[in-house]
Amino acid sequence: MSKLPKRVEFHEEGPREGFQIEKKIYPLADRVALVEALAETGLPHIQVASFVNPKKVPGMADTEQLFGAIKKKPGVHYTGLWLNEQGFLRAKATPGVDLQGKLSYYASDRFAMMNNNCSAAEMRERSLRWLDLYEQAGVKLESALIMVAFGCNIQGEVPISAVTDIVRWLHGVLKQRKLHLPNLYLADTVGWANPESIKRRVAAVREIMPEVRIGLHLHDTRGLGGANFYAALEMGVDLFDSSVAGLGGCPFCGNEHGTASGNVCTEDMVFLCHELGIETGIDLEKLIEASRLAERIIGRSLTGKLMHAGSLAKFRAAAKQAAE
Amino acid sequence: MSKLPKRVEFHEEGPREGFQIEKKIYPLADRVALVEALAETGLPHIQVASFVNPKKVPGMADTEQLFGAIKKKPGVHYTGLWLNEQGFLRAKATPGVDLQGKLSYYASDRFAMMNNNCSAAEMRERSLRWLDLYEQAGVKLESALIMVAFGCNIQGEVPISAVTDIVRWLHGVLKQRKLHLPNLYLADTVGWANPESIKRRVAAVREIMPEVRIGLHLHDTRGLGGANFYAALEMGVDLFDSSVAGLGGCPFCGNEHGTASGNVCTEDMVFLCHELGIETGIDLEKLIEASRLAERIIGRSLTGKLMHAGSLAKFRAAAKQAAE
Repeated sequence: MSKLPKRVEFHEEGPREGFQIEKKIYPLADRVALVEALAETGLPHIQVASFVNPKKVPGMADTEQLFGAIKKKPGVHYTGLWLNEQGFLRAKATPGVDLQGKLSYYASDRFAMMNNNCSAAEMRERSLRWLDLYEQAGVKLESALIMVAFGCNIQGEVPISAVTDIVRWLHGVLKQRKLHLPNLYLADTVGWANPESIKRRVAAVREIMPEVRIGLHLHDTRGLGGANFYAALEMGVDLFDSSVAGLGGCPFCGNEHGTASGNVCTEDMVFLCHELGIETGIDLEKLIEASRLAERIIGRSLTGKLMHAGSLAKFRAAAKQAAE
Repeated sequence: MSKLPKRVEFHEEGPREGFQIEKKIYPLADRVALVEALAETGLPHIQVASFVNPKKVPGMADTEQLFGAIKKKPGVHYTGLWLNEQGFLRAKATPGVDLQGKLSYYASDRFAMMNNNCSAAEMRERSLRWLDLYEQAGVKLESALIMVAFGCNIQGEVPISAVTDIVRWLHGVLKQRKLHLPNLYLADTVGWANPESIKRRVAAVREIMPEVRIGLHLHDTRGLGGANFYAALEMGVDLFDSSVAGLGGCPFCGNEHGTASGNVCTEDMVFLCHELGIETGIDLEKLIEASRLAERIIGRSLTGKLMHAGSLAKFRAAAKQAAE
């Protein structure tokens, strides 16, 4: 009934999102095993870890070793996250990192200060230097991401104009530099989005940059992740960040109980796509196995649903056999 | 952008759904406290317990005592579930039960056999006797519910025709008996629904009975509960069963790990409605407190998200104060 996309691309964030929030440092071998299991599912992009201050995020202190230890599968992109120049230079110096030119912006000044220790405007200016760095390093521009694009725990409501201002500014920069931006992500970093705010923002961004592919980085902080994902599909969005088993959560998001959920759960959303007849290129049963591995590694029940209930494949196969 | 309803009505099922699945019998005082806390939130309907075979569902053995122990709040409907005549007669004999004439149907024969020990056709015939019983007892017809309307773990796919056949047959019965059916529920008993199958079935039922109010009884078994709920809102559906804290799950649904989720989570979906500007008459903060009480009673982390992250009210108030 809706104009759903024919194919959806998932970028797996679990290995980074899931372990950055933990106080404990998990064994390297376990994290390697999880990344390798994810690579076997057909996921095209896996964000392995981040190049951030190990004092602030101790769980990501051994990112270089982690990249070195993974047996790579051809065709899979193994990426890392950085939020400043230093992080990029570390990533660049690390063998095995798939360097993709990413730009990061904040729709809330106060969140930028907390997360990045600079204003949102300063972050814009810094991104110009990042563009220079990427050019010098021969790294192709891959995406821009606007954090807290739907609301912020410190600032409160984030108006659409805070998002469209960045998009308009970026559009001008790209035009001036004759650069092509393939993907533009809106991130619901701390769980303020709802299905209608998703639709409104996607429509507003498209008006300014109709040529860009819009991606969504959704968190299921308040239980609306699935509804938001579906609303985005209805808008034809075909690119999503997600976390296996629903791993993760923001370490600085200031939620009440410290147990706030992470990204939308990869296998639950892949299941949604498949049930809607949308291709993903992912082997759902293998992905469920990977999510159960994640749960064994973390050592407590994770928030994914499908991993606990199982998919419908078994029931369908049994019903088919009984009917024959 | 969509034709969302202005107001949505929630029927709380947590006290029944949540405790029927547990092997342990929880203290009566705890269950009384939960029902009383829920009644303070503005929820208009609370399903307290079921009148079923205590040998099969030991957690519901003391339903009569439970009804007797609850301090009732005027205006709140305290209901019970029955699946056969005997159950209705027990409910009728129990003081404090808000007797509502409900009819139950199965869209899958094999699920009916497992859950009710009769065929789906027999269940239809039995419902005629239920109508007689309700008439004799002066109980007004309130709703009909079609179980496994989206798919069945035993039979597999459930075609739309299995649902519309029941609706057409029921429509004929009601016409013949000159009865008015206010509400017709479609139940995704074991988690097979997806947003598009929701839309298709709602549209198909409306074609046959345009005058009936359609309700949905959704489970979040495979993580699509929120997306399904939103898809129903887009169809203008304004009546939902749900469970506080996401309590519950079907004791006979045969999922792999025995930890499958229960109904869609009341407070998460109330939050969704409020964020969309839809009225519910419910005090969300009180409801979150009730969900945390449910978690303390059950004694393990429950699947609701909002109860762990907290609502946005606190952040909005702080941001507003800072801006003044």
